[in-house]
Amino acid sequence: MNVELVCVGTELLLGSIVNTNAAYLSEKCAGLGLSCYFQTVVGDNGDRLARVLGTAMERSDIVIVCGGLGPTEDDLTKETAAKVCGKKMYLHEPSKKAIESFFAYKGMEPTDNNWKQAMLPEGAIVLHNPNGTAPGVIMEMKDVKVILLPGPPNELQPMFEESVAPYLASLTAQVICSQTVKICGVGESKAETMVMDLIDGQTNPTIATYAKTGEVHIRVTANAGDRKSAAKLLKPVVKELKARFGNHIYTTEEDVTLEKSVVDLALANNLTITCAESCTGGMLSARLINVPGISEVYKSGVVTYSNKAKRKLLGVKKSTLQKYGAVSEKTAGEMAKGALLISRADVSVAITGIAGPDGGTEEKPVGLVYIACSVKGKVTVKECRFSGNRNKIRESAVSAALALMRGCILEYYSKVTFGKKES
Amino acid sequence: MNVELVCVGTELLLGSIVNTNAAYLSEKCAGLGLSCYFQTVVGDNGDRLARVLGTAMERSDIVIVCGGLGPTEDDLTKETAAKVCGKKMYLHEPSKKAIESFFAYKGMEPTDNNWKQAMLPEGAIVLHNPNGTAPGVIMEMKDVKVILLPGPPNELQPMFEESVAPYLASLTAQVICSQTVKICGVGESKAETMVMDLIDGQTNPTIATYAKTGEVHIRVTANAGDRKSAAKLLKPVVKELKARFGNHIYTTEEDVTLEKSVVDLALANNLTITCAESCTGGMLSARLINVPGISEVYKSGVVTYSNKAKRKLLGVKKSTLQKYGAVSEKTAGEMAKGALLISRADVSVAITGIAGPDGGTEEKPVGLVYIACSVKGKVTVKECRFSGNRNKIRESAVSAALALMRGCILEYYSKVTFGKKES
Repeated sequence: MNVELVCVGTELLLGSIVNTNAAYLSEKCAGLGLSCYFQTVVGDNGDRLARVLGTAMERSDIVIVCGGLGPTEDDLTKETAAKVCGKKMYLHEPSKKAIESFFAYKGMEPTDNNWKQAMLPEGAIVLHNPNGTAPGVIMEMKDVKVILLPGPPNELQPMFEESVAPYLASLTAQVICSQTVKICGVGESKAETMVMDLIDGQTNPTIATYAKTGEVHIRVTANAGDRKSAAKLLKPVVKELKARFGNHIYTTEEDVTLEKSVVDLALANNLTITCAESCTGGMLSARLINVPGISEVYKSGVVTYSNKAKRKLLGVKKSTLQKYGAVSEKTAGEMAKGALLISRADVSVAITGIAGPDGGTEEKPVGLVYIACSVKGKVTVKECRFSGNRNKIRESAVSAALALMRGCILEYYSKVTFGKKES
Repeated sequence: MNVELVCVGTELLLGSIVNTNAAYLSEKCAGLGLSCYFQTVVGDNGDRLARVLGTAMERSDIVIVCGGLGPTEDDLTKETAAKVCGKKMYLHEPSKKAIESFFAYKGMEPTDNNWKQAMLPEGAIVLHNPNGTAPGVIMEMKDVKVILLPGPPNELQPMFEESVAPYLASLTAQVICSQTVKICGVGESKAETMVMDLIDGQTNPTIATYAKTGEVHIRVTANAGDRKSAAKLLKPVVKELKARFGNHIYTTEEDVTLEKSVVDLALANNLTITCAESCTGGMLSARLINVPGISEVYKSGVVTYSNKAKRKLLGVKKSTLQKYGAVSEKTAGEMAKGALLISRADVSVAITGIAGPDGGTEEKPVGLVYIACSVKGKVTVKECRFSGNRNKIRESAVSAALALMRGCILEYYSKVTFGKKES
């Protein structure tokens, strides 16, 4: 069974707000085993909305419409949808009473246009809205169900959970399960080439790759009659991916980010981490510190943007800066060593590079970044060449630093080199 | 002239990511005076994409398609769009060379599927992508232009700014001028209330408000036969906004961010800046350091996440931490003072707060953040209460810190208090 989303709102078409309702509803519907092939955004305009609804109702089994149920003149969703579905409107007494109580509770007087919200299409299932004055609506036609939900997320989400999800679950017998294999240190095209044969032969489960900055995610999705059978379909494919990508896989958990996998690795080995950043200027620390519970792992870090700060705070030698420059393997290494000394952490990462737009030379172009990682004094330095604008280069450097940190800790503690375990 | 957006990606239909490209493109198109009536999201599926493109090309003057230009099998956008537009594909040598250089620079080998990205529709305008391997494409038909852009925002946005915006501007005889008045330190609903009368009466210019984290942008858009006339229409409205929001306006320039306005203010007053961050963990420094040419202003900063680091690196008193706690006005103030001492900067900002999800109490709930700013020793501390998840709270704190820094520097140097000048 498939579902289509129609989000109504001029503010979406103007880009004033981001369409988080679409992401929320899509994810929920996928979890219920419904395929979503189309999402449309249309403004508060009767004709255009009617056209979009007509198209959606022809090609989809379920149409979820959100927004435009408010009390103002602009709000046309319910009237338009009723017309397209051939339903008359009537005053729904329980909704009128609910609106009265809602205003009484807030100590406010309803205005005349509030009663518009109690007008509902004949024969519709009415969904209670405990968080606002617009009730939800389900209209059941022969080949299609049309579901109208209020636009504000704090009204839409509870209504979906309480009323819509159970209704949708009752319509379908299929369940979808998906698992994401997250990989660092392998480029997107290389990763895709490595799984091309699996993608080519895919039917159920399906396999898709997603490129992120410095990472590739491979999502495996299966559908079956129940959760257990779907999970059983996923298992051998995920196992095969693990065999192919080895230690480049940092997680197969949905909510684990690259930074969280590094923090988890540090926690597991009882390690503290510190960062010394030049061109990334705090971005690496900021990503690590976004992991809840980071306080056991990260105590302090420094941003040393100037040469003087590199010398004074990290003890980088004046001669090193003079002979090799601030963006060099040698400086990165000394920064990592100095960072361990001042923080007394177990692991340090230092980043120094040329993020541009200025400051590049033929020998040291914009995008050249050195990343050093020291695990208890054992220093590894990596030279990277990133492309893109200043921010892209910095983001790439941060992802590479996390991947390097992960690799160095793994190697130090398990004698693991990427892809194989040493005997 | 109207524009329609088609965003391609199974990850959007699965709700794995939020459609920020749609919001970005809508806002930019509105700024260019283009009306957007429809946005559609469709998956990486040739048939469905072709149907959506067909519908869009019938009803709109310009169709912007984003996503699905990658090197993998999944990526069908270019091939499908070319087919719908009746264009053959050919190997575009400059794009092939660009891909070769991209990989050579990275010291990597392109895989076979990378060359797919150099295959382009005949007769198309090719848009250079300095941040990735997928070139953008413009296909010009008699009644409709179809523009294909890469999906990753860090590739799409620079390409839009550099190539698409000037192209779109060239299509219309009407000249659209817009100016954005950027405001910090005033909430969204307050700002909206303050301009409601202007919005209600709007025809030309139009006025729209956009809420950003810790900021509100008010865009004024006028259209006229030539640039001079459009600019003339803008002038009185922008003047009125300046009168209403006073010093809360940090810029009216398109490319000036809040952090750039702070850096410019520091440069103008010959000041250096340092940051001492706890819960934001480097985010403030990272935002400042994203401003090109920051090296004159920012030399060093520290991330002091643990109490020990606050004491050792910044000299916060043990008794202060014991009596008032790490998240307190007093600790924030001492952090700011200590930061000036170790960095020898002129201005310091310190942030300490509870970003959650854990660590909140009734007295000090999640979202409580203290921000201190010292300008040459004169310390101001602000208590803030933010809502949202960990990352949202941290982003809000960073924006508030930039606004505070701006306010404190202005006050110190010009005796300006917000909204009025002291006599």
